[in-house]
Amino acid sequence: MSRQEDQSRQRRYGDVRLRGFADRASFEEAVAWLDLHGRPVLPAEDISVDTAQGRVTAAVVSAPADIPAMDCAGTDGYALRSAETEGATDYNPLLVTLSETFDKPSHRLPLAGAALVSAGTPLPCGADAILPFDAAQLKGTTLEIFSAVAAGSGVERRGQQVRAGAALIEARRALRPQDAGLLASVGIERVRVVRSPRIRLVIAGPKVFAGCPSTGDANGPMLCGLVRRDGGIVETMHVAEPGCEALGQAIAAPGTDVIVVAGRTGTGLDDEVPLALAKVGKLAIHGVALRPGGSAGMGLIGVTPVLLLPGDPLACLCAYELLAGRLIRSLGGLSPELPHPVRDAEVGRKIVSAIGFVELCRVRFVDGRVEPVGSAEFGGLASSIRADGFVVIPAPLEGYAPGTHVKVHLC
Amino acid sequence: MSRQEDQSRQRRYGDVRLRGFADRASFEEAVAWLDLHGRPVLPAEDISVDTAQGRVTAAVVSAPADIPAMDCAGTDGYALRSAETEGATDYNPLLVTLSETFDKPSHRLPLAGAALVSAGTPLPCGADAILPFDAAQLKGTTLEIFSAVAAGSGVERRGQQVRAGAALIEARRALRPQDAGLLASVGIERVRVVRSPRIRLVIAGPKVFAGCPSTGDANGPMLCGLVRRDGGIVETMHVAEPGCEALGQAIAAPGTDVIVVAGRTGTGLDDEVPLALAKVGKLAIHGVALRPGGSAGMGLIGVTPVLLLPGDPLACLCAYELLAGRLIRSLGGLSPELPHPVRDAEVGRKIVSAIGFVELCRVRFVDGRVEPVGSAEFGGLASSIRADGFVVIPAPLEGYAPGTHVKVHLC
Repeated sequence: MSRQEDQSRQRRYGDVRLRGFADRASFEEAVAWLDLHGRPVLPAEDISVDTAQGRVTAAVVSAPADIPAMDCAGTDGYALRSAETEGATDYNPLLVTLSETFDKPSHRLPLAGAALVSAGTPLPCGADAILPFDAAQLKGTTLEIFSAVAAGSGVERRGQQVRAGAALIEARRALRPQDAGLLASVGIERVRVVRSPRIRLVIAGPKVFAGCPSTGDANGPMLCGLVRRDGGIVETMHVAEPGCEALGQAIAAPGTDVIVVAGRTGTGLDDEVPLALAKVGKLAIHGVALRPGGSAGMGLIGVTPVLLLPGDPLACLCAYELLAGRLIRSLGGLSPELPHPVRDAEVGRKIVSAIGFVELCRVRFVDGRVEPVGSAEFGGLASSIRADGFVVIPAPLEGYAPGTHVKVHLC
Repeated sequence: MSRQEDQSRQRRYGDVRLRGFADRASFEEAVAWLDLHGRPVLPAEDISVDTAQGRVTAAVVSAPADIPAMDCAGTDGYALRSAETEGATDYNPLLVTLSETFDKPSHRLPLAGAALVSAGTPLPCGADAILPFDAAQLKGTTLEIFSAVAAGSGVERRGQQVRAGAALIEARRALRPQDAGLLASVGIERVRVVRSPRIRLVIAGPKVFAGCPSTGDANGPMLCGLVRRDGGIVETMHVAEPGCEALGQAIAAPGTDVIVVAGRTGTGLDDEVPLALAKVGKLAIHGVALRPGGSAGMGLIGVTPVLLLPGDPLACLCAYELLAGRLIRSLGGLSPELPHPVRDAEVGRKIVSAIGFVELCRVRFVDGRVEPVGSAEFGGLASSIRADGFVVIPAPLEGYAPGTHVKVHLC
């Protein structure tokens, strides 16, 4: 962004207190800003494979050797020469002699011999097939063979799974349990992963009213869980009397990769967070064409992104899911896209949306179709508890009629 | 299960070493056994909401009070009497006086008065609507009103989200970040959840061959990750020289909710795990019509379930996903069904399966359609690393032709 553009933005997103958002950024502008500042945090780090599950590889992990490292039995059975089984039937069993217990791969199978092997056992020299147990009968050390076996049958060749040096796991992949198992099995003990981004979560407390039952903070526990889901490490600060100076100090303190401030972003007189950011850093965007969550904002302190989320818990959840989470996932090397499982579903009851706003509509499944839950007008998490997921409605649409097929993000 | 049935099972699943599985349990029989022994572990426990994410509620959590606790402003704006705005237009603004800063809910709004409120602020006595900032202009303490507002507009009524005593969160629900936020916001600090089941993971090491590059254990790290995903707490024991006695001791040691043994369940001479279980407890099933993973077994030591998984990592993964994981999820109060996100997809390249076996086929997406990856014949995790998920093929089918629609479990 050039200095000029930056200044025009500074002008554009002025003080909205007691005025309202005259000029919001489009959802696409907000996403473009987030993607511009969403490069994986550096430097990458080497960590133990045991603790690497869910972490994102920083580089390709190559196979240190062929897998398997030598020709192996692919199944339990008797390793032997396939040619020596030709013509064997139930009525014409052929006889071979079972070798002494096979315990090294350099063991050479005698002619008319067989060796007992388990799946994964190296193949004895000379053997070229594995006869299954149910095709033979062992009497002492004599093995009666009842059917022929083709060369190569039951044998897994050296390097058949992966060749030495080939990519075992690509870069930018979140490691699954089986990936960790694979790395351990080939003797890889440490793996290079993207560092987990550090997130400073600043909770700008709500106004307290005398004589009014005080409510606890929903946003702290909720955002901690969401940030952890997206691979971040959270440090939480509560600013109980969030004046402009205290907020500025919380934002400007060093030692973090992202600052997320929840609360005090709206149009009330005490909504001083955007002003505090503009004083100590740069406010790039304040007000996004998003519902709920439209008072969200974003900017920089030095080169560190600062994300402003509304204090209303439902608006906060929505702005986290559609905006903040995107940046945090990118910083951790994950895909920026929404991480929820997706299911296609038919709309059962009309979903209404305001034209010009990207809307997140909470829905639940009723008889296999989705219906909106809760009020679009008001916040609060309670009404969304019954939701099975949400639908994102693009700005140009006024909603979805019954029968429309939509993509439901399950959560 | 009656004693007689139990004895018939004991007979049915005899020693398979050097013989093969003459008589396997059907997949459905195995699942029925798992479901019979999959009751949530007791007793439930009370834990802090801060650490409750992902945990499963043991009972309904009820709202301790109405939400919201009193009539509130649902948006930022001016609280006033709607009747006093009747007839206001841009050309005929009506005037009211802004009250001093409103700071307690018992505040009574003077006639022709208005109070500045933020979303969530209790409504002043007498006010029945919230006028948005952009419908008015403040000059000193005089507020010019440019449009009428309907009674109730912008107001959220006491209990509108949830009534006191109503269910806030159902029983047997895995708590999401927003659930934890909601509980914190209504002052609930502790929540009753199903205890996390303790899993003793016994790794029965593979045979070591002199002169053969030794490979590390894949199953330990992999199963730890899978068990944690399914809500269990793992304690791992390695039995390096897994004779029948050492295995029996590892299985019989007290202090766990489930025992999972990985390795030595096949038809080789040293596959002594099923015999060890039969000696110290009861072997209910050994051999399941499942591929890969067909040498899996299950039984009891006292009333504690013991699950036997194959040593080959791919077979182990499959038997965990389709069998062991089911029991562990049930013990933790989760749904026994597979936890992976599911996507419907069209088959792009033929998927082959053996009739009579439930088969887990690893697949990947190519141009939006799924193709099998890796060899159906051999194990090993490496070939499955390219998989985006798997398809479960029922026993009566010989696979899926291109163009068939299948359910892909993403992982």
